[in-house]
Amino acid sequence: MFQDIIQKKRDNLELTKADIDYFISEYTKNSIPDYQASALLMAIYLNGMSNQEISNLTLAMANSGETYNYPANLNVVDKHSSGGVGDKITLVSLPIAAACGVNIAKISGRGLGFTGGTADKLRAFNMNLSLTEQDFIDKINNNGCAIMESSINIAPADKKLYSLRDATSTVDSLPLIAASIMSKKLATGAPNLVLDVKFGSGALMKTAEKATQLAQQMIDIAKFSGRNAVALITNMDEPLGTHVGNNLEVIEAINTLNGNGDENFTQLSVEIATYMVMLGLKIDHDSALQLAQTALKNGSALNKLKQIIQAQSGVFVPDAIKTHSSTTHILAQTSGFVTHINAQDIGNASMHLGAGRNTIDDDIDLTVGVLIHAKVGTSVNCGDKLATLYGNPGDETIRLTQNAFTVGNTPPKKIPMIYKVLT
Amino acid sequence: MFQDIIQKKRDNLELTKADIDYFISEYTKNSIPDYQASALLMAIYLNGMSNQEISNLTLAMANSGETYNYPANLNVVDKHSSGGVGDKITLVSLPIAAACGVNIAKISGRGLGFTGGTADKLRAFNMNLSLTEQDFIDKINNNGCAIMESSINIAPADKKLYSLRDATSTVDSLPLIAASIMSKKLATGAPNLVLDVKFGSGALMKTAEKATQLAQQMIDIAKFSGRNAVALITNMDEPLGTHVGNNLEVIEAINTLNGNGDENFTQLSVEIATYMVMLGLKIDHDSALQLAQTALKNGSALNKLKQIIQAQSGVFVPDAIKTHSSTTHILAQTSGFVTHINAQDIGNASMHLGAGRNTIDDDIDLTVGVLIHAKVGTSVNCGDKLATLYGNPGDETIRLTQNAFTVGNTPPKKIPMIYKVLT
Repeated sequence: MFQDIIQKKRDNLELTKADIDYFISEYTKNSIPDYQASALLMAIYLNGMSNQEISNLTLAMANSGETYNYPANLNVVDKHSSGGVGDKITLVSLPIAAACGVNIAKISGRGLGFTGGTADKLRAFNMNLSLTEQDFIDKINNNGCAIMESSINIAPADKKLYSLRDATSTVDSLPLIAASIMSKKLATGAPNLVLDVKFGSGALMKTAEKATQLAQQMIDIAKFSGRNAVALITNMDEPLGTHVGNNLEVIEAINTLNGNGDENFTQLSVEIATYMVMLGLKIDHDSALQLAQTALKNGSALNKLKQIIQAQSGVFVPDAIKTHSSTTHILAQTSGFVTHINAQDIGNASMHLGAGRNTIDDDIDLTVGVLIHAKVGTSVNCGDKLATLYGNPGDETIRLTQNAFTVGNTPPKKIPMIYKVLT
Repeated sequence: MFQDIIQKKRDNLELTKADIDYFISEYTKNSIPDYQASALLMAIYLNGMSNQEISNLTLAMANSGETYNYPANLNVVDKHSSGGVGDKITLVSLPIAAACGVNIAKISGRGLGFTGGTADKLRAFNMNLSLTEQDFIDKINNNGCAIMESSINIAPADKKLYSLRDATSTVDSLPLIAASIMSKKLATGAPNLVLDVKFGSGALMKTAEKATQLAQQMIDIAKFSGRNAVALITNMDEPLGTHVGNNLEVIEAINTLNGNGDENFTQLSVEIATYMVMLGLKIDHDSALQLAQTALKNGSALNKLKQIIQAQSGVFVPDAIKTHSSTTHILAQTSGFVTHINAQDIGNASMHLGAGRNTIDDDIDLTVGVLIHAKVGTSVNCGDKLATLYGNPGDETIRLTQNAFTVGNTPPKKIPMIYKVLT
């Protein structure tokens, strides 16, 4: 009886692999009702799960739908971000790593809430993201990289559970978050994973400690299933780079590949590409970093992006990428140093402008978003532009953006972008 | 949003009266889905509830359906047992207290699992237990006592929540048990309550400590809503009295009112009647005890039982009360003293014979049950009868009954029936 499984977790006993397999297979085929599953989810939320339980849960979820396999000789690498405001790293680090010769199988999702999704951003290029498994592998073979949108057939148990978690306040549970992310990664089969786990106001994990725990959990799951994984714990307290919103972020990514990117953003993108190169080519950090830096500098990364886009029937015309014609400037109310930019507020402002979804079926406006002129540490005079809103903001959104900026008298301490790397 | 209420309890914050009222009223009208309610129930199970929360929950549940009111001058008393194996105390203590002049409004339920319900036992008299509120009050006015079967209209939120708890392993939660019992008592309106909270193998609460906690919780709820309540914490480690099963228990109750009852059972029934007299007539314990003992001895209690039955169109013909014609004796396998009788096993044996329900809609056989010949402390010789099963037992039921008895070499310590009285 499923009640016995609920009771076990309620009483803080360990669930067996058989318990977990039964839960996931029966729940996926609707044989366990939502009201029993949600009681179990709340018990998991409050009592936690052992590493063994989390790994078994992840595998069961991964095996609840289609699974992908790649030829071993490709030594394919995938990259995943836990999501953040202005996170367009994939658009930069993927072409860099692919230009270095790494084979990349990237499965992208759509954004939800104030964090974006790569699949939405790629709409700027009108690419075909619905590939068959064979087509996907062929493109990787030919171009070193292919990008697909995650489908309903990948880890369907995760989709069903995510909806239920969303309705029952059980989203924010470390074991369930780790299992959710990793189930999709295990199903889509890359043997090498670079995980970018973000912390701060603009991320799911608010502290470096929580992000580190999540990252460690994901690495444990990867190892349990025989994959290689590296996790970078990275700062997301201010928005990443200067552009937030789908097309705006694509523009920033192209600027970066042209050598005109925000310094912090460029550095982090190169560093993530470096770990992809390390895993994909099995070389050390310094050699990989040198390859990545060269690929960015000599334009081969930008060329690779064009090639990837065109191979998937897309068009690469940077000047044709639209931004909203209506703009509103947010000005500094005082002189001083920008000491803090609340990333979550900027993310929400962008969402209110129409860039993000409240529910997975919402439509979004690719042209809206927030452009940040004064990043943390910048000295500003009263009346200087702090940010520009693209779209038609309400008073609330203007106020939100204004209040996201803190201007003080002393320059803030510089916080490193990478807090820690876990392997 | 209901998610916010779930989140509050998940994070161990206190729910407001508004939160709880919203939950109960919306859940009762099916506006909150079961899967959200069950997540909240599991959070309550694991994080508990404050006294304030429990009282608010109980009141909200009580007010989810019909509520009864009695004329204040009647100073009506109700009695409730948390349930146990062989618990026919109501059938003895009610007539005693009514014979002493107490006005009693007794709302009875049906049994579930191995514990019985008074409404089932009263079927032996073919009484009408479906009374209108006015009819109920009139009969109390005329005879000092009336008995009704709880209806679907009393605390419907409790019925809906109980089914959900049963399916989600959240039954065994002190706040939820207390709220469930007391919501029905508050709805049916008696200003005075005598609570018999049992502990031991044959009770819901396995230890005296847990029973005391539950009793204290129920008294707190009663006081919060302006009622008087007394709770007796009583021992239910061996079955109560000698007869288990519906008609068998009615026969024992009549024997007891005739002065031929088991000593422990008689004493406890008189004691519970005494507390009803204390609350109903507002007199002290010793005076009440004397009245109760006299009512039992002089036959007025037995007469009162007849009168109550006849006033509700029933027939009082003790000799016509049937027991099953097929009997199986359970014999002592060794000589010595009966040192323990596992009440839960006896209750389950009786249920397997057909006396109890697995689900609230099961039909039951009133004639089956277990008669205990050798109570704890009795000296037995090998081959002596320990018990008689009425009905057609399978091997499993015979073994269960046999194993319920422990026979040892030394007489066991006598354990008092009443562990504690809380007011």
